[in-house]
Parts: sequence; C-alpha cells; structure tokens
Amino acid sequence: MNQKLQMSSNLTINLERVKQDLYNLARFGYNPDDQGIYRQGFSDEDMKARHWLMDQMEGYGLKVRMDGAGNVIGRYGSDDQKALLIGSHLDSVPAGGMFDGVLGVVAGLECIRVLQENNIELKHAIEVIGTSEEEGRFGGMLGAQALTGNLKLDWLERAQDHSGEMLRDAMAKCQLPYHLAMEAARDPEDLVGFLELHIEQGPVLEKTNNTIGVVEGISGVFKWLIKFIGKADHAGTAPMDLRSDAFMGVADFAHEISRIIDEEGTDKTRLTIGSVELKPGFAHTVPGEADFTLVGRDMSEEVMRNLADSCRKVCSSIARKHKLMFEYEQMSWLEPRPCTAEMVELLERHSRARDYKTLLMPSGAGHDSQFFTDITPTGLLFIPSVGGVSHAPDEWSHWHDVEKGCNVLLDATLELIAA
Amino acid sequence: MNQKLQMSSNLTINLERVKQDLYNLARFGYNPDDQGIYRQGFSDEDMKARHWLMDQMEGYGLKVRMDGAGNVIGRYGSDDQKALLIGSHLDSVPAGGMFDGVLGVVAGLECIRVLQENNIELKHAIEVIGTSEEEGRFGGMLGAQALTGNLKLDWLERAQDHSGEMLRDAMAKCQLPYHLAMEAARDPEDLVGFLELHIEQGPVLEKTNNTIGVVEGISGVFKWLIKFIGKADHAGTAPMDLRSDAFMGVADFAHEISRIIDEEGTDKTRLTIGSVELKPGFAHTVPGEADFTLVGRDMSEEVMRNLADSCRKVCSSIARKHKLMFEYEQMSWLEPRPCTAEMVELLERHSRARDYKTLLMPSGAGHDSQFFTDITPTGLLFIPSVGGVSHAPDEWSHWHDVEKGCNVLLDATLELIAA
Repeated sequence: MNQKLQMSSNLTINLERVKQDLYNLARFGYNPDDQGIYRQGFSDEDMKARHWLMDQMEGYGLKVRMDGAGNVIGRYGSDDQKALLIGSHLDSVPAGGMFDGVLGVVAGLECIRVLQENNIELKHAIEVIGTSEEEGRFGGMLGAQALTGNLKLDWLERAQDHSGEMLRDAMAKCQLPYHLAMEAARDPEDLVGFLELHIEQGPVLEKTNNTIGVVEGISGVFKWLIKFIGKADHAGTAPMDLRSDAFMGVADFAHEISRIIDEEGTDKTRLTIGSVELKPGFAHTVPGEADFTLVGRDMSEEVMRNLADSCRKVCSSIARKHKLMFEYEQMSWLEPRPCTAEMVELLERHSRARDYKTLLMPSGAGHDSQFFTDITPTGLLFIPSVGGVSHAPDEWSHWHDVEKGCNVLLDATLELIAA
Repeated sequence: MNQKLQMSSNLTINLERVKQDLYNLARFGYNPDDQGIYRQGFSDEDMKARHWLMDQMEGYGLKVRMDGAGNVIGRYGSDDQKALLIGSHLDSVPAGGMFDGVLGVVAGLECIRVLQENNIELKHAIEVIGTSEEEGRFGGMLGAQALTGNLKLDWLERAQDHSGEMLRDAMAKCQLPYHLAMEAARDPEDLVGFLELHIEQGPVLEKTNNTIGVVEGISGVFKWLIKFIGKADHAGTAPMDLRSDAFMGVADFAHEISRIIDEEGTDKTRLTIGSVELKPGFAHTVPGEADFTLVGRDMSEEVMRNLADSCRKVCSSIARKHKLMFEYEQMSWLEPRPCTAEMVELLERHSRARDYKTLLMPSGAGHDSQFFTDITPTGLLFIPSVGGVSHAPDEWSHWHDVEKGCNVLLDATLELIAA
C-alpha cells in the first residue's frame, strides 16, 4: 500500500472543467437533426473550434499558435525547455460524437490547469496540441504527419476529399498556405514525449470490466481488393454443378476466416470482409464476378505476413474448387506501431497505483500517436466507449471513466515533467 | 427401323429459309456498337419487326392480324377449324441475341411453308404466333398472358417499366389501346394445342451432348429477400469474438446450400444468391446488415416447400450462432408448370424417330408455354445454346441444331393436324 500511495500523485483533475470544455467544443458542428457533430478537417466549424480553443488557452496564459498544418498548440513553460506534448485531434467524422479526439486535447489542458493551480515546478514544458485532419477527410492524418516530419509536398498538392475538393484549396480557405504544413515538423531533440488520451471506440474495456486501457501499440493493417471471376449464368437454366458462381468463392473464403486466425493469427488478429459487390448482381443471375475487400490487422508484422500468405493460399484453392479466377491487389500495408515500452510501463503503473482496473491492449484503430512513435517516446491511453460505439452521434463515455483517464494522464505527466 | 420410318415424316424443313428469316428479323433493333439486339416490347423496333413479319405471312397467303396485346397471328386453314398454335416471342432483352424467341416464330412459319409446298391436307388450322413482351419489360409475359386469359385490367393500368414508363402509354404509342389486350384471350375450345421451339439458354444439352431437349415442365420458382441484421463495428477495434458480423451470416448460409440441396432437393433444384448488399459496405467496418436475394427452383412444389423450410431453419440457426436478427420476405412463389404429358411423349417420340440425341429436361427459365399449359395441351422443345449463353450479343445456336429442332416441330405438327 505504501508503494501505491507513493506512486499516485495527491492531485486530481477537475471533472467539471473537463465536462464544460467538452460540451463547449461539442457546439462546433453540432447538427440538431441527427445530433451528430460535423467538424471535418478544415471546415468552418473545425476552424471555429480551433480559434475558440486558442482563446481558452490564452486565457490560461499559455503561449498559443496555430502551425502551418492547422494544429493548435498551447505551450506552458519556458521557451528553452524541452516539451512534453499532450494531445489528440479536434476534427470529427461526419455525424461523429463529442469525445473522439477532443477528449485528449481537453485532458491535456486540464493537466496544465492542475499544475498551474498547484504551482508545480517544471523541468520541461508542456504543449497541449489539438491536431488537424486526423479523421482522414483527405486520406491521411495531416496534423500528426506534419508534426512528425511525415508529410510529402507532392501529396499536399494532390490530396483531395471524396467530393473532389483539393486539400490545398480547403487549407487556403482557412488562410493556411498548404506548403507551410511542411514547416510544422518538430525537432525530436526538443521533445520529451507524446501522450494521448482517447476513447477506445471498441467494446473490449466495457466487456472485460476494465476502466483504463494502456495501448501497447497500433496494429498493423493490410487492405486487399480481391476478385473472384466465374461465369454469369441464368439462375434457372444453369444446373448447380455446371456453375462458376463467383459468390460461392467469397462465401467459402469467409467461412475459412476463423480457421485461418486459429492457425496463423493471435487474439489480436482481425480479418474483416467489409464490402462485397456481385456482378451483375441480379437475383436471377448466377454472379459472374465478386469483388470484395479484406482488411487484416495484427500487432506483429510476421503474423500479418503469415495471415496474408494463408489468405492467398485459401483463395487460390477455393478458386480452383469453384472453377473461378482469383486476383487480388494489395491496396495498403501499414506495419504495426508499438508504443514506447517505458511509456506503456509508466501509464500502466500509474493506472494501477490508483487502483483502476487496467488492461494492456492493442489499438485496432489508427491514432495520432502512431506517427509520434517515430520521433519521441509515445504513450496512448484508452477509456471505455459505451457499447463500443464511436463515429456516431450516440458515442458516449461515462464521466467517471473520463475522470479516471484524465487522472492517469495527470500522474504520468507529473512524473515526466515535474522538477 | 420400320417403326422409325413410319413415325418420322418424309418431309424436312428448308434451313436456308429459316436462316433468312432469322437474319432478316435480327436487323430490327440491331446495334452495331455492341452487336446486341435491342427490341424491347412495344419499342419502335419491336413494332417494325412485327409489321415485317405480318407482310411475310401475307405473302404466304396466311390470314394475318395483330391482336389487342400486340401478338402477331398468321392463320393457315379454314375459319371453322380448331387451331394448333405454334410460336414464341418476337421481343428481346436489351443487348439480346438473334435466336431467343424469334426461332420459335420462324420455325412455325417454316412448318406452314412445308405443308403448303406439299399440299398436305389439314384437319385443323395452324396459327403462327409472335407473342408480345415476353421478356418482362413491364414485369409479366403480356402476350402469352393475354392469349391465355391470364391478364388483369388493373395490372395493365398500373404496370410500368424500369424507367417509369407506363405500359398503357407504351402500348398507346403503338396504336394499341391497352384495354383491348383483354380481348386477345383465346377460347380453349378452339385450340388443339400450343407448340414452342426455343433455344435452351443454358449449358445442359451442350454439356450432355444432346441435340433436342424435350421440356417436361417449367420449374416453379420462389424469390426471397433475406436480411441479417447484426452490429456495424470498427473493423480494427471490434475483436472477432465480440462481433455480430452480418456478412458472416450470408457466408455461412451460402456454404450450406449444397447440403440443403443434397438433403431436400433433386437434380433439378437450383438455389442462387444473385445479389448481396452489405451496410454500410465500407472496407474498415464490420457489416451491420446484409441484404441478399435467394431464388429457388424445382419441378416439384413439394420439394420447393421443403427447400424453403430448410432455408428458413438454416438461416435461423446461423442467425443465433452469429448473434444476428434474421428477417425474410417472400417476393414471389410461382408453382411449377408441367408440360402436357401427351405433348412430351409426342415430341420425344418424333425426336428419337429422327435419331436425334434427346433429353427430357426441366426449363429453369420462364417461357410463353408456361401460360398455355393452363388452357391447352402444350409442348416445349429446346435446342442447344453454344456455351449456354443467352440474353447477350454472343448468343448462338448451330444451324444444324436449328434444322433438327425445326424438323421435330414439323413432325409433331404433322401428326397433330394432318387429316
């Protein structure tokens, strides 16, 4: 028990202030019709939220700026200190919820308020960051990529959203000349680390009765487009044994997924068929072609390779069995991004010190953190999402969980920056 | 051998004339871009083809008319005789082929030409019929339904095609007041029977090396819309064992289809999943809903009921296993239409008498014949479709098979109508 007391700070965050900030930010982009939040990157509402946050930060005496990528940064501490970055994103998906991203920004600001109130002496500065365009309206995680030197100028020139709007035009409307995003890159020498508190956006913490998830890393992910090509036939005239039914290939493959995971995967493996298109797609026609997506994830790149090999073999063998042609195209292959071991240890220790039920877990979704792992010690914390729901108006996290997440963030921050 | 000689006539059809007629009719609606035929029911090209055929028939001295449903009818014989009807449809699907339907009309006309040339004395009249709108542009088989008294006036008033054009407007443009379609119904007392020669539109005759298919009946068919409803989840954050993946329900059901047929079906059973829609249908989202079609066919209505029962049970059990809701809606249930036993015997006997390789088979596709079974002895003959292809520009049947099909039709006609 002594050890526990020694390790957890005697400070706690003020939940009321966190609530207030979350509700205030939720007004930006709120749509009363579906109660969703529409604050897509570089939209008017996104920029309004950023300027509101900058005003708040200035009110607390932080040194505030927006960098060339649209990231909002509020610095607490002297100019010559290294900085611990705390943050997450301020943008939302269309019809999103009020916790996704914003929680990690508000929690960072709250940590600074607690340090200020208690006159904690700092050996490092803290910067609270509200990153830009994490949700991938333009196909990347612009803010985090800019901060970590992971941007390419030609991508900035070419990127466009679903509607065809160019990233550079969207940025120009926000008075952000796109090439200045390149100047947002931070020198790793100036950084102590990056901490992010985020909602889980999945069901695991809730189902396992845990309060705090300490993320060991962001899963690697591959995405394939798979095609089975058979022969379209009249569903009445073609006997079952003379068909080359492309959909039967997909169905048989889907049926093998659990076996593939048993043989080649781990408990962190995910294999998902999210989209299937049959051609011609008529009730009375045997499908002549089936195009579908396969998304695979795991925390180990070797496991990912084994899964991919197995999927390829199974598809080939199913194609032969059903007299189909089999093609696939690898659309992307992103390697796993482990969080920094010391940060995982630090966050887990502080969570357990407060007696919070704590789970080490992977993140299947992408987060700003995955880019920071490249340049600085990075830690990522999860709190439970009610029903596992996110990216939807009914995204919710209980206030007592929000409070606990912020407290772990506070304790970890204190250990990292207190003099 | 004596018996064979006795049963097959010494007459044969003239393939060159049949070819000429088929090529002449193929000009109506021909599109040089895709080489498909576009002669949808009540289109300009459809009407031009009908009037061309009427001119031809008049040239052969037939008594020619177009009835209120757009059917073209050429009668050979005296007014007071009963009539054997021979025919099929003149309309095509979009981008269709040159044999589908038309063959059965041209073959009927050729039979009459042979009878005329040989001065065969008739105890019954023959009517060659080119039926209208068999391909279902407006959702039925208008011509055959009209002739067999199977039309409803309110359907004529309501029916529209895919583009929203009303049947009654399309008919009006062809100078056919829609209500006159009701007057096309034939009195069964005036009929001897109905004979139809058609291409198989499937691969069975070709694969089994048969030349003549004698159709025992048109399969019954049911169509279901099935829905599995689970829960849409982020494909990264939702562990495999916490998912309610609606697509896995479809895949498991598809996987069971061959077992269901083994247990409940026959060699004439067809079960087809032709269309699948996943919602939301994103690569990175576990499907929360899967809507798909199931089309079942068999020659026995009892077998159809057993298949339907089994499909329902399997879907229920799969839904429980995957934590899904299961709903289905029966869109249609058409009972099997057996061809008339004497006609099947007649056609088979004449085909074998000519030493043609002959197969008794079901028809999985619908044909004009299926309505005539209601009112008069009905026989349906198939010849092979190369590669089983139909409803496409590369639909083809070999000329020697066309010739044999016409010869069987001629022999059967002679037996039925010669004095």
